[in-house]
Amino acid sequence: MDSSSDLALTEAGAVLAAEAARFASFGWMRGTSGNLSMVTSRDPLRLAVTASGLDKGELTSSDAVLVDDSGAAVNGGRPSAEAALHARIARLTGAGAVVHVHSIAAVAVARRRLDGIVFRDLEMLKGVGRAAHHEDVVLPVIENSQDMAVLGDRLEAARNPLMPAVVVAGHGLYAWGADPRQARHHTEVVEWLLELELAEHPPGPPRHRPSGQGQP
Amino acid sequence: MDSSSDLALTEAGAVLAAEAARFASFGWMRGTSGNLSMVTSRDPLRLAVTASGLDKGELTSSDAVLVDDSGAAVNGGRPSAEAALHARIARLTGAGAVVHVHSIAAVAVARRRLDGIVFRDLEMLKGVGRAAHHEDVVLPVIENSQDMAVLGDRLEAARNPLMPAVVVAGHGLYAWGADPRQARHHTEVVEWLLELELAEHPPGPPRHRPSGQGQP
Amino acid sequence: MDSSSDLALTEAGAVLAAEAARFASFGWMRGTSGNLSMVTSRDPLRLAVTASGLDKGELTSSDAVLVDDSGAAVNGGRPSAEAALHARIARLTGAGAVVHVHSIAAVAVARRRLDGIVFRDLEMLKGVGRAAHHEDVVLPVIENSQDMAVLGDRLEAARNPLMPAVVVAGHGLYAWGADPRQARHHTEVVEWLLELELAEHPPGPPRHRPSGQGQP
Amino acid sequence: MDSSSDLALTEAGAVLAAEAARFASFGWMRGTSGNLSMVTSRDPLRLAVTASGLDKGELTSSDAVLVDDSGAAVNGGRPSAEAALHARIARLTGAGAVVHVHSIAAVAVARRRLDGIVFRDLEMLKGVGRAAHHEDVVLPVIENSQDMAVLGDRLEAARNPLMPAVVVAGHGLYAWGADPRQARHHTEVVEWLLELELAEHPPGPPRHRPSGQGQP
Repeated sequence: MDSSSDLALTEAGAVLAAEAARFASFGWMRGTSGNLSMVTSRDPLRLAVTASGLDKGELTSSDAVLVDDSGAAVNGGRPSAEAALHARIARLTGAGAVVHVHSIAAVAVARRRLDGIVFRDLEMLKGVGRAAHHEDVVLPVIENSQDMAVLGDRLEAARNPLMPAVVVAGHGLYAWGADPRQARHHTEVVEWLLELELAEHPPGPPRHRPSGQGQP
Repeated sequence: MDSSSDLALTEAGAVLAAEAARFASFGWMRGTSGNLSMVTSRDPLRLAVTASGLDKGELTSSDAVLVDDSGAAVNGGRPSAEAALHARIARLTGAGAVVHVHSIAAVAVARRRLDGIVFRDLEMLKGVGRAAHHEDVVLPVIENSQDMAVLGDRLEAARNPLMPAVVVAGHGLYAWGADPRQARHHTEVVEWLLELELAEHPPGPPRHRPSGQGQP
Repeated sequence: MDSSSDLALTEAGAVLAAEAARFASFGWMRGTSGNLSMVTSRDPLRLAVTASGLDKGELTSSDAVLVDDSGAAVNGGRPSAEAALHARIARLTGAGAVVHVHSIAAVAVARRRLDGIVFRDLEMLKGVGRAAHHEDVVLPVIENSQDMAVLGDRLEAARNPLMPAVVVAGHGLYAWGADPRQARHHTEVVEWLLELELAEHPPGPPRHRPSGQGQP
Repeated sequence: MDSSSDLALTEAGAVLAAEAARFASFGWMRGTSGNLSMVTSRDPLRLAVTASGLDKGELTSSDAVLVDDSGAAVNGGRPSAEAALHARIARLTGAGAVVHVHSIAAVAVARRRLDGIVFRDLEMLKGVGRAAHHEDVVLPVIENSQDMAVLGDRLEAARNPLMPAVVVAGHGLYAWGADPRQARHHTEVVEWLLELELAEHPPGPPRHRPSGQGQP
């Protein structure tokens, strides 16, 4: 890797560190949970991904690892285990940045909405590019797996092209956008929707959507 | 616009940026949601309004746009879509500053109190200029719309002259005051009342007030 | 007032400003709600009390007012309306500092526990000087009033000499201690107990304690 | 104690002060509650423990006390009453750091799960070294006591060798790790699990686990 790539990785690392510190301050990255990525090159696909096992509130610009389109480290370092899923989301959606957080609202709501979470008639939906009125907007929920290929297949099968986010049941939230700032805004908007859902609907047994309201 | 107006706009922008950062830190302006304004001239009516599409925790003094009494930009820039409603509230109520936030409590409570939210016997009501005892105080709830003229008509029809705030269902809270600091305090007091309501009354189907308890 | 008194008032004002900023950061002093005081002289009784109508997160060392044992300003300034109650608590309990905050947990829990809130078998009770086991500890609840003499009579009648706090229904929490730091710790401990109570007992109609479990 | 020990204690004190300030900012150390420790020598066992009665958000590097394997101060100072339990956990588990916090979620959840709290199928379990799938993970709950020998016996009898944490009913959470950072991450992960449990299961009467699902 030449020095200009080093520079690009360091710059991406600084952006990811700042974004991670923000999400950590919200309590969405407790322990060393969650990971963030940013596309540094489209062809060949390269992403800067946060390194594994670090406190997400304490990252520095040198805590990002460069990975290829399979999530493998290009120049050493130990990327998050989920780097492969980040790379797949970037390929699949064209996103320039991916955020993965472990939020309590995502896990609590998904446990009761295994077929996807339907939002409707909320101004906040405009924050993910949807209409504020008269449209069911489905946030897909997929089953968790430790196999990134399996998880990626599920995400690809379930994803809603009009919703830049997926919840992994028992795990957390993935959201993405054209760049780190838009990925941040999508993350915050979806988390807001999930917190509202949790505030409005008291816990109970898992619910499935009536058939005919299927996932896109 | 002469340079003194530029200065006034920059000064207003600095105030709005500080206020917005405060509300953003409370989680009431997730994504790029919400907007704030401040009257810079009464005749003709001119307001500094936060620019559209920006992160409300990262505004600077140059991120305000000057609008007229219809919410149209006077000297360029892209005001929030809701600038027209800010201007109408300033005209209608004489307010010198308007705050619009997307808080979860406002949306969650309004969904179940479509005819308005009644508060009573709370010391905190003095924070919006009402009696702490023996008086029903109604916070109006209006239906959401993407048409600012429609939304403004609803606000004008529903508003309670003794309550410097209105909730837009499925959307968020508008509050206002003589100046940005008073608008802030009114926003915080109403949000506190909404959070108390949410804590005290568990979610359930929408409720309508018994007739005879009509909105002022 | 000689210059050494001025100095004492400024020093007390700096302490109160720091304590108020702390409580404001917790969301317990929204709008301009709540007030704090600190005894500066015991004989004659003099207290520094936070000035009325200010944002409690923005106080400076010059925002305290000196009051006498009736809560009247000694050298000008506009003390909080509740200064008289602060002075009465200082007289009655010997406290050196009094904290009054508007917390949602205090108001939500008191609404359902009009005869007092009973805590038992909690380690946290040691933080207000009580046993962690085998003892009912009652936090008194009194009815609100705008008349500080009435409110003071109620507090005097209801107070539990072994609990340095009282909740005013529909209003907020008063807590006190030997000095501002102890008053802070008592405030935090009682607020913790109230938040636990709110988390453990879902809202419902007001409950009265069974007779025979009367307030001390 | 020679000067190199003094230095080690001061260094440990600085680490404990930073960790304590973090937990205090989360509201898990209200009043003067909770305490932290760090092993400074394994043979003989010596721990730096936070001093008693101080505000955990305001500790400095000189606010740690050196204790021996019974929790007694080695060179003066007043350790937390629970120093003996910290020392016992360090002996029993080989931990290099122990965290004790008073969190509302720990107390609220433990009150209803007196036989232990069972987690399953949660990615976050990997943060305490367990499988994310297909395994019941038990967080033990023990009865509170003011006698540290009794409390230590209960902890020793109930502890799950595969879970670096125990909840003390009516009291709070103990968590530990190889060093202060790992102890922090274990604390945050377990607290996240407890907050999720509280969000998913509404309060009710105490529940006991069905027999056959016994604690390891």
